[in-house]
Amino acid sequence: MTEKTTGLSRSKTSRIEAFSDGVFAIVITLLVFQIKIPELRDALSSREAWNALVALAPNFSGFVLGFAFIAVFWINHHRFFELVAYVDWRLMWGNNLLLLFLCFVPFPTGFIGEYPRNPVALALFAIVLSLTGVVFNLMWRHARRHALILPSVPPATVQQAIRRGLVGPCLYGMAAISAFLAPLFSWVIFLAVPVFYCIPVKAIEQNGEAL
Amino acid sequence: MTEKTTGLSRSKTSRIEAFSDGVFAIVITLLVFQIKIPELRDALSSREAWNALVALAPNFSGFVLGFAFIAVFWINHHRFFELVAYVDWRLMWGNNLLLLFLCFVPFPTGFIGEYPRNPVALALFAIVLSLTGVVFNLMWRHARRHALILPSVPPATVQQAIRRGLVGPCLYGMAAISAFLAPLFSWVIFLAVPVFYCIPVKAIEQNGEAL
Amino acid sequence: MTEKTTGLSRSKTSRIEAFSDGVFAIVITLLVFQIKIPELRDALSSREAWNALVALAPNFSGFVLGFAFIAVFWINHHRFFELVAYVDWRLMWGNNLLLLFLCFVPFPTGFIGEYPRNPVALALFAIVLSLTGVVFNLMWRHARRHALILPSVPPATVQQAIRRGLVGPCLYGMAAISAFLAPLFSWVIFLAVPVFYCIPVKAIEQNGEAL
Amino acid sequence: MTEKTTGLSRSKTSRIEAFSDGVFAIVITLLVFQIKIPELRDALSSREAWNALVALAPNFSGFVLGFAFIAVFWINHHRFFELVAYVDWRLMWGNNLLLLFLCFVPFPTGFIGEYPRNPVALALFAIVLSLTGVVFNLMWRHARRHALILPSVPPATVQQAIRRGLVGPCLYGMAAISAFLAPLFSWVIFLAVPVFYCIPVKAIEQNGEAL
Repeated sequence: MTEKTTGLSRSKTSRIEAFSDGVFAIVITLLVFQIKIPELRDALSSREAWNALVALAPNFSGFVLGFAFIAVFWINHHRFFELVAYVDWRLMWGNNLLLLFLCFVPFPTGFIGEYPRNPVALALFAIVLSLTGVVFNLMWRHARRHALILPSVPPATVQQAIRRGLVGPCLYGMAAISAFLAPLFSWVIFLAVPVFYCIPVKAIEQNGEAL
Repeated sequence: MTEKTTGLSRSKTSRIEAFSDGVFAIVITLLVFQIKIPELRDALSSREAWNALVALAPNFSGFVLGFAFIAVFWINHHRFFELVAYVDWRLMWGNNLLLLFLCFVPFPTGFIGEYPRNPVALALFAIVLSLTGVVFNLMWRHARRHALILPSVPPATVQQAIRRGLVGPCLYGMAAISAFLAPLFSWVIFLAVPVFYCIPVKAIEQNGEAL
Repeated sequence: MTEKTTGLSRSKTSRIEAFSDGVFAIVITLLVFQIKIPELRDALSSREAWNALVALAPNFSGFVLGFAFIAVFWINHHRFFELVAYVDWRLMWGNNLLLLFLCFVPFPTGFIGEYPRNPVALALFAIVLSLTGVVFNLMWRHARRHALILPSVPPATVQQAIRRGLVGPCLYGMAAISAFLAPLFSWVIFLAVPVFYCIPVKAIEQNGEAL
Repeated sequence: MTEKTTGLSRSKTSRIEAFSDGVFAIVITLLVFQIKIPELRDALSSREAWNALVALAPNFSGFVLGFAFIAVFWINHHRFFELVAYVDWRLMWGNNLLLLFLCFVPFPTGFIGEYPRNPVALALFAIVLSLTGVVFNLMWRHARRHALILPSVPPATVQQAIRRGLVGPCLYGMAAISAFLAPLFSWVIFLAVPVFYCIPVKAIEQNGEAL
């Protein structure tokens, strides 16, 4: 295995992974802090507390969706770096751009939590998540084009990952449009995408690379 | 030791552990941020500051309880992954569900801190902690049923962990009911559960697997 | 080197260290979030912005003191676990208690930042920091009494660490009292303690165990 | 390779790196929390939500600039510790000072986000970032002067890193001055610095030490 002179050795990619993992863990944990503790006038009233919680239902839903998105992304991000042999300058900055979008996720998540039927809020959430997926897809394509992927990985696996990776951005793109036509449908898509991605794929499983 | 083709190798489980550890460390550190700095009208008044701190007593108590819950859970979570040989798809998503509940803990913790005698707030705290324990118990059972646990672990150890793991959810379930009848008793249970779990068990100790 | 049957092997102590390190890193980074962005009536006024920053001077000072305290503690915490061979049940819970106090530090730090001359706020800061040091000192003593420290560590090093470790709690105890008599003197002590601890000791240096 | 008796062995520097990495990951993730979810009077109004987002444009820009600064710094920080053989007492405290400035970055980032044309806010941001770079440059110089850098590293590489490391502080210093004369120009500099640093250097690349 000849090492590229302008790339980073395998061991050094673990640094990028560790840093990214830290960011993933922090973002996923911070999401709940966009939900403010409700203020009750009567501190002892069960009814008022219950109503406050019901009123927070969209915030809780936003939290769960943001969580699911990041959890799914974390798994795919790991899978990607498992298969990558070298990280060149562009891939590293692609990853930084990805982290930029991921770090931004709490904002639109909190926004749709507060205004769950506002078209612009829903569209912002959809666009941020779509762009995150697009950046990740470009990272896959760049890694394939510049042979940064381990030689032992069959091209079909890469091809499948790239094709599957387009499903999310496309669906989120649809959600951005439907936000202005049928906001509820956007929520359905937001829920459907993580469900789609958390179902394991046969071909990938057989290669023992589910994570 | 034959590796399952659809599972993740031992080394890969360390990733899930590291990610989970990050989440545990962040959640436990963020709890204090649900306690707002009190506002004093007279910046120099010792009396006013003291009264403000006394008024925050429930918030401090909530912080300590949330901290104790997560600290105990962290130890048991480690113990579990120490004994697990492979992580399959379901176990991984079970763990993600567990992290979802753990990441949510700061919300009910802050809620009971603000409204320490509100039945709904106390019940929410109890239910979230109970469900967290239930998910963890299901992870243990799934691991046992699908032989994901290291062959060297005696079945009695697993059996004991599963049985002990039910104590928390049951007590928290009781606390959810007593929240509407005797709120103070719920607080007693909230305190009792971590105390129960931090007492080491003989049989486990002898296997040198206290953590 | 005989391993105690009821203790944790050396490799397992690294888990506790890693978890503690995470908590240290998060607490130290979160301190700044107790400083609220000032609100200006005239968004373009340099004078108003400058006055707002000057008014935040105590908050900035509190931030620096809290940071220095945690940075010093992190170094000493590492040094301790470098020398520890086994972690028993009590030491582990002693460490959890230590983390509880450390995680609480942002609250009193924010409090003295807001009310820098309030005796109760200063006393709370002093007491929390003092108790943190006391817990750590008890951990050292427990480790010495139960022979949890590596046999290669000279007793004089342990003795010195324990004696030096008392300086902080004693000074902070004095600061808690002076908070009611001469608040400014408490601030002097808060500054003096980290300065004292960050000066390396000859004897320790010679053993090459400065960290 | 003779080890200095008063320094820290190579393996121990990894601790400082891991701790610093944690701080970097947390700071970069927390930046977004300086952007408050806007409050809309009409929860369904696309127009109002859009206007609110447009009004947040400076906050978003501040977030991106803060993110870029920390991402670039993280890469350079890694590169530095890759080349360092031993960490002495001064270098360790230099690093702690660096982390102090980095942990403070969210405050000026939030401040320029709220008041993007306020000269004092812009100058504060510029000064904090400049000082961070100065501390880092002093760390490089200290490491060179006291031969803490790996013998295999060519002096030209160190010289280049030190010289390049001065570009940022100088430009930020200019930005601090221009804040009072032409605020927009300060923003241009804030954007230009990370762009300058993320372009890889030929000579460094050839040594295969891009990260």
